[in-house]
Amino acid sequence: MKSKSAVAFEAGKPLQIVEIDVAPPKKGEVLVKITHTGVCHTDAFTLSGDDPEGVFPAVLGHEGAGIVMAVGEGVTSIAVGDHVIPLYTAECGECLFCQSNKTNLCVAVRATQGKGLMPDGTTRFSYQGQPIYHYMGCSTFSEYTVVAEVSLAKINPKANPEQVCLLGCGVTTGLGAVKNTAKVQEGDSVAVFGLGGIGLAVVQGAKLAKAGRIIAIDTNPEKFELARSFGATDCINPKDYDKPIQQVIVEMTGWGVDHSFECIGNVNVMRSALESAHRGWGQSVIIGVAGTGQEISTRPFQLVTGRRWLGTAFGGVKGRSELPNMVEQAMHGEIQLEPFVTHTMPLEDINQAFDLMHEGKSIRSVIHF
Amino acid sequence: MKSKSAVAFEAGKPLQIVEIDVAPPKKGEVLVKITHTGVCHTDAFTLSGDDPEGVFPAVLGHEGAGIVMAVGEGVTSIAVGDHVIPLYTAECGECLFCQSNKTNLCVAVRATQGKGLMPDGTTRFSYQGQPIYHYMGCSTFSEYTVVAEVSLAKINPKANPEQVCLLGCGVTTGLGAVKNTAKVQEGDSVAVFGLGGIGLAVVQGAKLAKAGRIIAIDTNPEKFELARSFGATDCINPKDYDKPIQQVIVEMTGWGVDHSFECIGNVNVMRSALESAHRGWGQSVIIGVAGTGQEISTRPFQLVTGRRWLGTAFGGVKGRSELPNMVEQAMHGEIQLEPFVTHTMPLEDINQAFDLMHEGKSIRSVIHF
Repeated sequence: MKSKSAVAFEAGKPLQIVEIDVAPPKKGEVLVKITHTGVCHTDAFTLSGDDPEGVFPAVLGHEGAGIVMAVGEGVTSIAVGDHVIPLYTAECGECLFCQSNKTNLCVAVRATQGKGLMPDGTTRFSYQGQPIYHYMGCSTFSEYTVVAEVSLAKINPKANPEQVCLLGCGVTTGLGAVKNTAKVQEGDSVAVFGLGGIGLAVVQGAKLAKAGRIIAIDTNPEKFELARSFGATDCINPKDYDKPIQQVIVEMTGWGVDHSFECIGNVNVMRSALESAHRGWGQSVIIGVAGTGQEISTRPFQLVTGRRWLGTAFGGVKGRSELPNMVEQAMHGEIQLEPFVTHTMPLEDINQAFDLMHEGKSIRSVIHF
Repeated sequence: MKSKSAVAFEAGKPLQIVEIDVAPPKKGEVLVKITHTGVCHTDAFTLSGDDPEGVFPAVLGHEGAGIVMAVGEGVTSIAVGDHVIPLYTAECGECLFCQSNKTNLCVAVRATQGKGLMPDGTTRFSYQGQPIYHYMGCSTFSEYTVVAEVSLAKINPKANPEQVCLLGCGVTTGLGAVKNTAKVQEGDSVAVFGLGGIGLAVVQGAKLAKAGRIIAIDTNPEKFELARSFGATDCINPKDYDKPIQQVIVEMTGWGVDHSFECIGNVNVMRSALESAHRGWGQSVIIGVAGTGQEISTRPFQLVTGRRWLGTAFGGVKGRSELPNMVEQAMHGEIQLEPFVTHTMPLEDINQAFDLMHEGKSIRSVIHF
């Protein structure tokens, strides 16, 4: 079938809105009509060419919501008409990782997903007869996409797709990092580095966990008002200080914070975040994705004196098990999504969404089809 | 009073056996007659001059056992005749850190201890009228030493001091890293990098925790027999492989080990240990102490895919609370100490103990007075 899609034909160039061909879903696959998709920094990261797994031409996008139009052979958990959120972290329920309660990093479709392919090693997208690659198992920048059954969370059909699409990536990642990875407890102190969508979701998650002090850090003070509205108690700008920001935070708190979160993807900030953690027990969670070949470093003394360095992907959330309930929480106002949506626009304007993000003017632009 | 002591007059030179003057214990201090002391790599590290906190001249040694000879003003928890183990990690019971159940890193005497001084900022040691510094709050390479009350664990007087002195550092560090820091569970897989006293204690601790596979790694295969006797199931030598040892371990285990421990102090090995940890949940504990200015590094992807990087000091053990029971366990054979003691010698021969250690010929030399 034909589908209006935004295609990344090559790295570093704007997306092109074209009509592509989408093949029917094969065994274990599902055809989804995407109604809304957020535009995330990870899309921009891949489009920039810095992502070592980036392949072109591809349909990017991984933060969407849609409705099932058709299912392939053997699909039993999803039916035509279901409302769904595509998952870049699948949940097969059967692999070593799904069987563990310690991780969400299902490996069912990992090998092919990283190459831009469906599990059988082929693509369902083509343009003028040439294959177009998939992206993160989702490819939500397309009116129609094909997704593996294990990569779809079935959600309440009454949920607002313009908002709950954000649970497909950024907001879930931030909330999950607080709840599943760091396990923030009531009264704990928290520092959040970077106030994009993920960082603001971490602030919201910390507030939900009843954290005591929530220190929000960004070099753009325009982000502070929204951070405060989500629950930040202190907002600081590293540019206002002559000393390293970790030193500022340790001095503000006495011994550092119980939990710090890096929400940017900058390896220097990852170090600052670790070194802002409390002597004896503070932990630092890396959420941001760094560029190819970049490395984190610190003195081992930081760890020997009790700090812990962690990371998280999709907030440790098992999507098929946990997302449906998070959608319910959003519908009941327990999770706030509306403040994240700073812009909405049709697919035709998607390159503006990237521009707004690069200029620091948006939290999330949501695309409608 | 006069005391026979091994004094480190300057970095990089052998210790000298001399008679020093030891002043009486002041308020909150205790005079201890040391009967036995182990010689640990940390003593050698400081003696080498690589320790940024190293001050000279000093009485080194921090792995001892002894008997209380006198107590200073206000000392209530320790009495003359008590058998004790000096602690380089104090336990005041009152500071923020002692009040937490997450750490053993008491700060009561931390500032002065790091400078080689007693808590009042002076020393109790002198030689020919010139002050001699303390070391790690213990200074066990001396027949008589003065230790803060908060830095003494009172133990069963029937314990064998030639063996339980090892609970003052290496063995406790290894056992504690497994139990308190990593919290190894029955059936877990473990990799131990470096089979000195601490590494062998980690192997023993893993066996006590009923770990499944225990992989012991050392470049000196002469260590393997002892490692096996402590419970190692696999012993591997990185020199036998053309590829990085972390790759060998990941291939041996499928996805890496549940817990890895760095017991050397080599920042490259710290990276190997982290990268040997299981995708999704594996954790790596740094125990070894690296040289000044050295840094650890890795790709953040290692953490984002679920590995956790931790560290430990004295195995996370609160000395005054936990050591007395560990001594009882050693007396009942639940903790094995005897195999660690490969050499015993009088204080006069202490430089031989350093030589044996540098040549890789000893696990622990225990000095008697």
